[in-house]
Amino acid sequence: MGALSDVKVLDLTRVLAGPYATMMLADLGAEIIKIEMPGKGDDSRAYGPYRNGESAYFMSINRNKQSMTLNLKAPEGKEILKELIQHVDVLVENFRPGTMERLGLGFDVLHELNPRLIYAASTGYGQTGPYSQRPAYDAVVQAMGGIMSITGSENGVPTRVGSSIGDIIAGLFLAFGILAALHERSRSGLGQLVDVAMLDGQVAILENAISRFEVTGVVPKPIGNRHPSIVPFEPFDTLTDPIMVAAGNDKLFESLCELLELNCASDERFATNPARQANYAKLRPLLAERFKTKTCVEWQKLFDQAGIPNGPINTVDKVVVNEQILARNMIVEVDHPVAGVTRIPGIPVKLSRTPGEIRFAAPLLGADTEALLSGVLGYSAEKIADLRAKQVI
Amino acid sequence: MGALSDVKVLDLTRVLAGPYATMMLADLGAEIIKIEMPGKGDDSRAYGPYRNGESAYFMSINRNKQSMTLNLKAPEGKEILKELIQHVDVLVENFRPGTMERLGLGFDVLHELNPRLIYAASTGYGQTGPYSQRPAYDAVVQAMGGIMSITGSENGVPTRVGSSIGDIIAGLFLAFGILAALHERSRSGLGQLVDVAMLDGQVAILENAISRFEVTGVVPKPIGNRHPSIVPFEPFDTLTDPIMVAAGNDKLFESLCELLELNCASDERFATNPARQANYAKLRPLLAERFKTKTCVEWQKLFDQAGIPNGPINTVDKVVVNEQILARNMIVEVDHPVAGVTRIPGIPVKLSRTPGEIRFAAPLLGADTEALLSGVLGYSAEKIADLRAKQVI
Repeated sequence: MGALSDVKVLDLTRVLAGPYATMMLADLGAEIIKIEMPGKGDDSRAYGPYRNGESAYFMSINRNKQSMTLNLKAPEGKEILKELIQHVDVLVENFRPGTMERLGLGFDVLHELNPRLIYAASTGYGQTGPYSQRPAYDAVVQAMGGIMSITGSENGVPTRVGSSIGDIIAGLFLAFGILAALHERSRSGLGQLVDVAMLDGQVAILENAISRFEVTGVVPKPIGNRHPSIVPFEPFDTLTDPIMVAAGNDKLFESLCELLELNCASDERFATNPARQANYAKLRPLLAERFKTKTCVEWQKLFDQAGIPNGPINTVDKVVVNEQILARNMIVEVDHPVAGVTRIPGIPVKLSRTPGEIRFAAPLLGADTEALLSGVLGYSAEKIADLRAKQVI
Repeated sequence: MGALSDVKVLDLTRVLAGPYATMMLADLGAEIIKIEMPGKGDDSRAYGPYRNGESAYFMSINRNKQSMTLNLKAPEGKEILKELIQHVDVLVENFRPGTMERLGLGFDVLHELNPRLIYAASTGYGQTGPYSQRPAYDAVVQAMGGIMSITGSENGVPTRVGSSIGDIIAGLFLAFGILAALHERSRSGLGQLVDVAMLDGQVAILENAISRFEVTGVVPKPIGNRHPSIVPFEPFDTLTDPIMVAAGNDKLFESLCELLELNCASDERFATNPARQANYAKLRPLLAERFKTKTCVEWQKLFDQAGIPNGPINTVDKVVVNEQILARNMIVEVDHPVAGVTRIPGIPVKLSRTPGEIRFAAPLLGADTEALLSGVLGYSAEKIADLRAKQVI
């Protein structure tokens, strides 16, 4: 029994931020009814690459969910949604603000039908504020939120983070907000609106960039792969691939110098971190030259024995076969009815007594429509056939 | 009353991943008792830059928390922790696996003292697996987890994300896992271990990089600021600053061409996204030339009117004054007893009925020690003075 196995979610979300949040809930046992447009479904079903015609992208973030087709623009579709809303704990959507109101399905309407409902909305800019009606994509919020301005090579151009963290961070905050609202409901008996904006999430992960600017007035810039204040704390080239080394204190620097066969640790120019920071330009070439005398794997072994934090810069092919990542079940196989066996990321939240589980692969479009209409709402086969003929489902 | 105002947390965490998680809980009302080493405190209290001697970094992620000094290596310190554990719902720590066991304060011991306790641990590599005993830093897990290998300029070197998302992502998953375990406890009455690894978190945010590799076998590389499959979806230089533009479909591309005064939308080389992708090298210069005819702000206005997703690439000084970010209370002032008024990031999870709140600034080291010992554990002034003399607190 998953930790969230008593939580029922009606999921109107598409593409990434919303589906990521409901995947997190689903992985810990929540029942997710994914509502999709008849004939078309979630936009990301069309995102390549495909395996036997099924989107690998869609499959990776929609495991553990049921799919029900429902046209929310059709009057019967709205009525079905209103019936379903009385059977669930949470509704999640990531439309632009106002869309659900225009469909006659806004928070107020649904809250009246089910006062216990948690209504969770993920948007680019939030339900409020001057930009609330603007369209947003991950690239735009990464640009506006500041993360691009501090990512990139030293003094180089602002660089987008290679995965869609604009969406993913919003998904994480949304999932957290949903559980917080559920927790509160156990006292008050009442649902509420959870409003998460992609842009807000980007501001929330700027970390020390904001406090550095606030105190010094200096605008943070991309600093490449160096740590802003610790030396050495960056990748070095080796005989083979580069290795990331993080000698976070003087003792680790001493161990590092010993393994590199350098006398730097006792040199007053390099003995303390402030000194290393001040004399970085002199220190780096000394270190870099020594790093080129062994392979990445040889250095890894030496550094691991000495307790010096280090690691290779893994490409994705290395990630999916890494022994630690596999030992943690972070790459798992699912068997999809059409695509067959596919590897997808595992569940990063490990609960000891009620562990999460990838119970089943992502659903085919509308795979659970009839079972849900008859099982949850008690619809007859005739009624379902009629809805299908009218393309409501 | 915050959504989590009935949740009490004993927080042994330092630096970033753990403190980020407990900040999320604190912002929604949880009571956080931050346990710190007497005389020294959380390592990040020493991270510059400072304001009146107080770390701006520490202040930004430790608002809404109480501070209690306690030496967990002293026998009396351990006893006090064991007493406190019976008064809280959650313990959070981010020591290396085995540290708490060596202190005699491992999960089994604490679980026996308080079977309802949620024990949440954030580590570099997790409680299990061959790397579990290795030290880790953000830079190392960003390297090993794959995100660096897909971030950077096109065909450029792997690039670290400019904020510590290795830590922050772990903090987000940890906070989510804690609430999931609390939810489950309301049914079972039992706590459990929540085990979150920074490396696992990095794998979980690789997004389509894993599915692309899984299906095509091609190892994803840094692709700069372009979208892997949509054109145009990248920044362009203007008369002033560059602007990020995301024309996600043919209709938006048509609007864009109209504003740029280009005939590309009817040109069969560019009419569809696959065509634009195939003829990118021809299309980009045409677009780039036109973008240089107006300022970033002029283009923003035109694109906003036409509904074309766009935004400037904001540096941090622009982020902290952005009208939408301010309207969403994502930059807020706190008044710290020593540092004075400082701006820090706001709360990205907006709950309508029980909103989060920054109730008070980050605590001075040990500010709440005596109040907690007398208020929660009923210790006398003499006993507290004795503990202080022995440097237990």
